[in-house]
Amino acid sequence: MHLDLTADAVTLTEQLVNIESVSRNEQAIADAVEAALRPLTHLTVSRHGNTVVARTHLGRGERVVLAGHLDTVPVNDNLPARREGDLLHGLGTCDMKAGDAVILRLAATVAEPNRDLTFILYEAEEIETEFNGLNLLSQSNPELMTADFAILMEPSDAVVEAGCQGTLRVDVRATGERAHSARSWRGVNAIHRAGDILDRLNAYEPRKPVIDGLEYHEGLNAVFIRGGVAGNVLPDECVVEVNHRFAPDRSEAEAEQFVRDFFDGYDVRLTDSAPGALPGLAVPAAKAFIDAVGGEVNPKFGWTDVARFSGLGVPAVNFGPGDPMLAHKQEEYVPIEHIERCERQLRDWLGADR
Amino acid sequence: MHLDLTADAVTLTEQLVNIESVSRNEQAIADAVEAALRPLTHLTVSRHGNTVVARTHLGRGERVVLAGHLDTVPVNDNLPARREGDLLHGLGTCDMKAGDAVILRLAATVAEPNRDLTFILYEAEEIETEFNGLNLLSQSNPELMTADFAILMEPSDAVVEAGCQGTLRVDVRATGERAHSARSWRGVNAIHRAGDILDRLNAYEPRKPVIDGLEYHEGLNAVFIRGGVAGNVLPDECVVEVNHRFAPDRSEAEAEQFVRDFFDGYDVRLTDSAPGALPGLAVPAAKAFIDAVGGEVNPKFGWTDVARFSGLGVPAVNFGPGDPMLAHKQEEYVPIEHIERCERQLRDWLGADR
Repeated sequence: MHLDLTADAVTLTEQLVNIESVSRNEQAIADAVEAALRPLTHLTVSRHGNTVVARTHLGRGERVVLAGHLDTVPVNDNLPARREGDLLHGLGTCDMKAGDAVILRLAATVAEPNRDLTFILYEAEEIETEFNGLNLLSQSNPELMTADFAILMEPSDAVVEAGCQGTLRVDVRATGERAHSARSWRGVNAIHRAGDILDRLNAYEPRKPVIDGLEYHEGLNAVFIRGGVAGNVLPDECVVEVNHRFAPDRSEAEAEQFVRDFFDGYDVRLTDSAPGALPGLAVPAAKAFIDAVGGEVNPKFGWTDVARFSGLGVPAVNFGPGDPMLAHKQEEYVPIEHIERCERQLRDWLGADR
Repeated sequence: MHLDLTADAVTLTEQLVNIESVSRNEQAIADAVEAALRPLTHLTVSRHGNTVVARTHLGRGERVVLAGHLDTVPVNDNLPARREGDLLHGLGTCDMKAGDAVILRLAATVAEPNRDLTFILYEAEEIETEFNGLNLLSQSNPELMTADFAILMEPSDAVVEAGCQGTLRVDVRATGERAHSARSWRGVNAIHRAGDILDRLNAYEPRKPVIDGLEYHEGLNAVFIRGGVAGNVLPDECVVEVNHRFAPDRSEAEAEQFVRDFFDGYDVRLTDSAPGALPGLAVPAAKAFIDAVGGEVNPKFGWTDVARFSGLGVPAVNFGPGDPMLAHKQEEYVPIEHIERCERQLRDWLGADR
């Protein structure tokens, strides 16, 4: 499969979409990306699994990463790409091959940017962290991710979404004593006891800290509940799985402590945790970028790979074509105007002729 | 396999236990029971599936049923029967072959009781109602269950347990609206809403009506709870399965209405229902029996097949050897003294020489 980097970004998005690349099956698309970038003499290209990195070496005062993942969620009768009016439909159009196309267009056509650039097109963002190309790169070659600023081109309605909230999950366990339900006074019903856990959740008041002028919005939600032994038995255990989304002014440890305090008196087990990322809008590279794209910035509520840059000390934002609410939906699409606008604004910011 | 009805009731219990008869596999034990009863000329014997009925026809002023089920729960490394000191151990010793042995001993040895007797030894009590031999008999030959009084020889610590409480199950459903847990304010968490269902359960005050001098004790308990879509999604549904045990002064319809009122505002679906049985201690046959066995009567909290007699207008009590708390336990056993006492008290009541 061949990618034509002289085509416009919309056509290139279509080409990328039509190379099926469900997570763990990214070899064909990574081969095509590598083959398209290798001939570009202004770039140093390296390959790491199915992750491709290309870098300029112009000795500029500042280096910026532009990154996007190449994989998609499973096919759901939504391939190949289909253009209808102002929209391009199909798996990965929104999440996030339109962003990838913009990255490849810039890599191919902006040979002398006013900032040094690192382009990262990586594998396995949609699945477990252990396979995530950016995570693997941060372990094997963190120097390739080093920069003054990073832009993750995940869909964000073509507006900057800064930082991201962290996320953790805990199992909160209520316990009791089994008894036959015909003689319930001989036992203690663990499901009834879990009522207090739900009462606490209902009384939860989310923090909404303002960081770099952006208002984040935390959350504490039961995402699963389970309990029960048999239809005639008082259960001795009820487990509420709670997901906490926390603003990036709190560390994972602080967020965990908050949850443990919140459910004081219960057995609380941490099952999953990922840190947030501070917006980092104070750094000059970030400021300049935001001015260049019109000054509008929103907080990012969901967790994204920007946190991996943040973890390396690199301020990072989300900025890409497409509505994030359409990600993972069968009917996903991207507005063509988003693709064109993102490319144009980045070109301007990089000091390129259009 | 041969049953020796001239042996004492303890030996007979042992013989019955050693004929394995897990529900749906009662042919061998029913054959043995039928073969043992057929030669007894004072009885009319009939067979209905693996249920055996034997009746006297002495023209007495009163008829009494003595009934027991022949099946057991699955074998759990607890066969054959094992006698240790004052206890007989093994599957079915308590639930309820000791009771069956007493029934068979009385059938064989009390040829001229002062009341006409109907002995019913039936299949499939431990499984779904559709297989239950007493249920099938109540449909095919209800005249064989007609009597002034019935004694179900389920384990009751050799003390009369009168009537039984009814039982019903409902699914109580809380609903919400799905949303990504990173933007939880866009949805409504159905698990959180179920907190109110649990609050109501925690505030429940059981009725304890006194009927025929016996204090019953109702119950309302969540036996299962389930909800959840994915680890990052606010669930739109949470279902609490609730078991209501109701005293026999309430009909199934009244009990259902109570539960619907209790969970007013929620979607409540009835999934299972069985009526209670009034103790019926006012009828002369019941009074005489209770006096004969020492006057002690306790209410029956669990549901038993006495309700099937009650449904046919026949007052019925539970009275049998063994601790009901040991039923369905691997280590079940029956005290030999219980077997002997039950047999002796029934023989006295029936006017037989010892």
